[in-house]
Amino acid sequence: MKNGLIVSKLKNGTVIDHIPAGRALAVLKVLGIKGNEGNRVALVMNVESKKMQRKDIVKIDGRSITEKEAQLITLIAPTATINIVKDYEVIEKRKLDIPEKVEGLLKCPNPSCITNNDIEAKSRFIKESKSPLILKCDYCETYITEEDVLRQILS
Amino acid sequence: MKNGLIVSKLKNGTVIDHIPAGRALAVLKVLGIKGNEGNRVALVMNVESKKMQRKDIVKIDGRSITEKEAQLITLIAPTATINIVKDYEVIEKRKLDIPEKVEGLLKCPNPSCITNNDIEAKSRFIKESKSPLILKCDYCETYITEEDVLRQILS
Repeated sequence: MKNGLIVSKLKNGTVIDHIPAGRALAVLKVLGIKGNEGNRVALVMNVESKKMQRKDIVKIDGRSITEKEAQLITLIAPTATINIVKDYEVIEKRKLDIPEKVEGLLKCPNPSCITNNDIEAKSRFIKESKSPLILKCDYCETYITEEDVLRQILS
Repeated sequence: MKNGLIVSKLKNGTVIDHIPAGRALAVLKVLGIKGNEGNRVALVMNVESKKMQRKDIVKIDGRSITEKEAQLITLIAPTATINIVKDYEVIEKRKLDIPEKVEGLLKCPNPSCITNNDIEAKSRFIKESKSPLILKCDYCETYITEEDVLRQILS
């Protein structure tokens, strides 16, 4: 294994598997991980997968995922699975699904939408389609796609 | 290895080892790697190291490093080593060193510096100190530190 990379098993932490190929860095971004937090992180991109042609995987030591983070991950990586590891064992497997309503996470692109003008209003999108992802603003009915979501999250 | 991550050996590509802990994403940024290029990438952050306390490693399949990229990596990851892999063997090991002159890679932070006002002028910094990194603009003598360099590269 001279140039192999040996990644030890995770003791406690989170494994995010089946991320669409090339989206791992977006997942790190959603989780606010830059590297200087000190957590051990392992990431692979564009590896072979049985279920998908290619996929990405992210492993984070000593870190759990909040509900809000899980929802954001769903939006940019709808195929992802989240495994919670404790004492080297997977104690919980969560298959993510895009919620029917996405509240307070995304910005409506329509500048005249009430959610962009009333500071008390919280954005709310309704799931119109899962694949391809289409969300509709519950106030002004503006549609947004997976690309719009990705752009918002990565900007 | 239920939750272990098995990263196969690299056939042809580049391994960047001994990156200061937490800087792997900056190295990807310098290389312009976002994930959607299709190359297999493996990355670990904050892992134990014999030489350093903690380090990051980046492996990229089917990708070599240009001279300019190597220089930028030196500036943000001065301890890094670059291994070129061909047919599963390391055929070249490059220990990077910060060059005496850094030309055309960084911007002088002084707005009145000639390099910011004459489009024909190329920035040039002279190495004043390696650790901590201090570079001096060869025109207006403004000093920049490792943090300034990192901020410029990551912005």
